Amino acid sequence: MTMMTPIQQLPDLGGAHIFMKREDLLPFSFGGNKVRIAAAFFADMKKQGCDVMIGYGNARSNLCRVLSAMACREQVPCVIISPDDEDGSRTETFNSRLVRASGARIRSCNKTKVRETVKAVLDEYRAAGYKPYYINGNAEGRGNEAVSCEAYIRVAGEIAAQEAEMGLRFDRIYLASGTGMTQAGLMIGAALEKRNWQITGISIARPADRCREVIRERTEAWKKANGCPALAVEEPSVCDAYLMGGYGQWEEPVAALIRETVLRHGIPLDPTYSGKAFYGMREELARDGREENVLFIHTGGGPLFFDFMQHEF
Amino acid sequence: MTMMTPIQQLPDLGGAHIFMKREDLLPFSFGGNKVRIAAAFFADMKKQGCDVMIGYGNARSNLCRVLSAMACREQVPCVIISPDDEDGSRTETFNSRLVRASGARIRSCNKTKVRETVKAVLDEYRAAGYKPYYINGNAEGRGNEAVSCEAYIRVAGEIAAQEAEMGLRFDRIYLASGTGMTQAGLMIGAALEKRNWQITGISIARPADRCREVIRERTEAWKKANGCPALAVEEPSVCDAYLMGGYGQWEEPVAALIRETVLRHGIPLDPTYSGKAFYGMREELARDGREENVLFIHTGGGPLFFDFMQHEF
Repeated sequence: MTMMTPIQQLPDLGGAHIFMKREDLLPFSFGGNKVRIAAAFFADMKKQGCDVMIGYGNARSNLCRVLSAMACREQVPCVIISPDDEDGSRTETFNSRLVRASGARIRSCNKTKVRETVKAVLDEYRAAGYKPYYINGNAEGRGNEAVSCEAYIRVAGEIAAQEAEMGLRFDRIYLASGTGMTQAGLMIGAALEKRNWQITGISIARPADRCREVIRERTEAWKKANGCPALAVEEPSVCDAYLMGGYGQWEEPVAALIRETVLRHGIPLDPTYSGKAFYGMREELARDGREENVLFIHTGGGPLFFDFMQHEF
Repeated sequence: MTMMTPIQQLPDLGGAHIFMKREDLLPFSFGGNKVRIAAAFFADMKKQGCDVMIGYGNARSNLCRVLSAMACREQVPCVIISPDDEDGSRTETFNSRLVRASGARIRSCNKTKVRETVKAVLDEYRAAGYKPYYINGNAEGRGNEAVSCEAYIRVAGEIAAQEAEMGLRFDRIYLASGTGMTQAGLMIGAALEKRNWQITGISIARPADRCREVIRERTEAWKKANGCPALAVEEPSVCDAYLMGGYGQWEEPVAALIRETVLRHGIPLDPTYSGKAFYGMREELARDGREENVLFIHTGGGPLFFDFMQHEF
């Protein structure tokens, strides 16, 4: 089931008119960008004739929640390879509990042993006669980058159509950037739609250089693969001023903004992804003070909001 | 911000083609029918020139969560009169925590002392120079019945438009019935749209006789007030075979259906309202076995799903 997610206006910030694209309302498994991305992985899995879905992500992962729910719906066996936290601990979250309840097999591993674990799982299923599909491609994590970015190329078209409906143009787009694939997709889509949106990823985990490198690599590969080497994709813009210690870490102003946003606007954010990015965007805009139309892509994470609420309300 | 909520098809059940209207995706404070109803209360409050919102509902109440969030957004003072549970205890839920966090004043009371408490709160605010608005009208709970039912008259028009888009007609509509006002609104709207939907409320708390009486009273009053005494509103249909001990109580098959629905279809239900009603509908349809198009109105309750999940997953 597809759906054009609504774009909602929020109060101005300095000179900026703020809009939010509510990808969190996608109507499957608590929504979010991962719903579109997981659907793309399942379509690719079927195209390749595979029969086991192998996901990768830690206890907070929205992607793993959606992958395991979609596998349950499609009645496809699913394995989630789940690295422990930096400190070796295993967090329990609503996402990880939904993964467990889905019947997916969870294979925990040390963060330094991901490659070996992926290889072992793939070998094991192949030996048993299955054709496993690993979302990141091969054991080195290469091969499926095109799939996860494809979904958001289409979303750029959706945003362009919504601009026409609303009678405005967005000057800037902000979103949380983790692996950067949602951003890469939007950037390719923007070029195809001939939009100059100035898309900025607020990094929630990685240094900006690494994010930019991965995004550039992806957009260049797409241009090559699709025979349009001259397509004017902008240079990746990533801001890593709001890492706050890294993945899953946050500071009190983010928590305060999450509380304010759910109470004042009825919109749930979370401190790992969307809330951190929304906070970063607001800080950047407050500094700029320009009058422009700014779109924030709410990439979802509803269950993480409830984890946050349990401890921070 | 308004939005036409999507209608989604689910697997057939016996002969019935099952559809779900995702009111849970209304884009404010976790959605649900109470978003439309609370908006109607705020509009009426302003029309009456009132300046304090007085809500009523227990710890599980979705309406109180939305009312307090909307009061926070509108910067209107809000009081929630909250009856203790039958056994005198005070449950804590994500809804009640959101109410508390909103800054609403919570006035707890014994279930037998509601009238006195409402009167005391109204008197107190009036003495202080405010003009309080009580969602249920006066201290006897009369006067605002028209407001809460009005929102769903409009939704009937939305459903009729969606039938045309989808190229089908619904033979039956099911929904959770608590106070019956959502059902009464839909029934009036169905008559206005000239639809024979056979709307059935699955009662989640009250005996069917009491529900039917309240709904009939409401639809008759509406016809009179709107000068259309001959409008062909159907006789209220309410089923109380799934009370399972009353409000907030449920049995294991409901819990199993909630788990299955979130995992297989990515749709959260809750055991107090939507899950109980969805279960009741499915039992009724399994018995009928007719080939027809059936629409379930998912009236929301996302935070209650997470309460359920904490204890039952």
